[in-house]
Amino acid sequence: MFVIITYDVGEKRVGKVCKKLREYLDWTQNSVFEGEITKGTLTRCLAELKTIMDEEDSVYLYKVENPRNLVKEVLGTDRSFYTMFL
Amino acid sequence: MFVIITYDVGEKRVGKVCKKLREYLDWTQNSVFEGEITKGTLTRCLAELKTIMDEEDSVYLYKVENPRNLVKEVLGTDRSFYTMFL
Repeated sequence: MFVIITYDVGEKRVGKVCKKLREYLDWTQNSVFEGEITKGTLTRCLAELKTIMDEEDSVYLYKVENPRNLVKEVLGTDRSFYTMFL
Repeated sequence: MFVIITYDVGEKRVGKVCKKLREYLDWTQNSVFEGEITKGTLTRCLAELKTIMDEEDSVYLYKVENPRNLVKEVLGTDRSFYTMFL
């Protein structure tokens, strides 16, 4: 399945959340990750994320079973393009 | 159709982009808007957004024709819950 994860977390945890998500998905924009992932791997990713998060933190997970049902359009700069060279 | 818009724009334009998107969609998290919108209204929204944006800014638009093909899961706090009382 294809997922988009957006997050709004406390300053102290941004780095850890970002590092964790990089293990599973592609960074595409500040606080936004995307990618194909299996149910099992997603379950593991979320379980690990929850150990990092605080109650006040906010993480949204958007799941699309069939990636063909989701169309992405970029206005302006595609940030994910640059991270390929990091 | 259902859309998610995420954005990463210059400090000077964040307020204007946010204000513009509030006219069309629901604010759900920092730099994240969601909602049902028609093609025509979306076209108008994007045209107006482009007049505000700078080349270096980044806006991602995720479109799902049938909202039933998208499942959203919230970890931690649902920020959009609080904006209902603003």
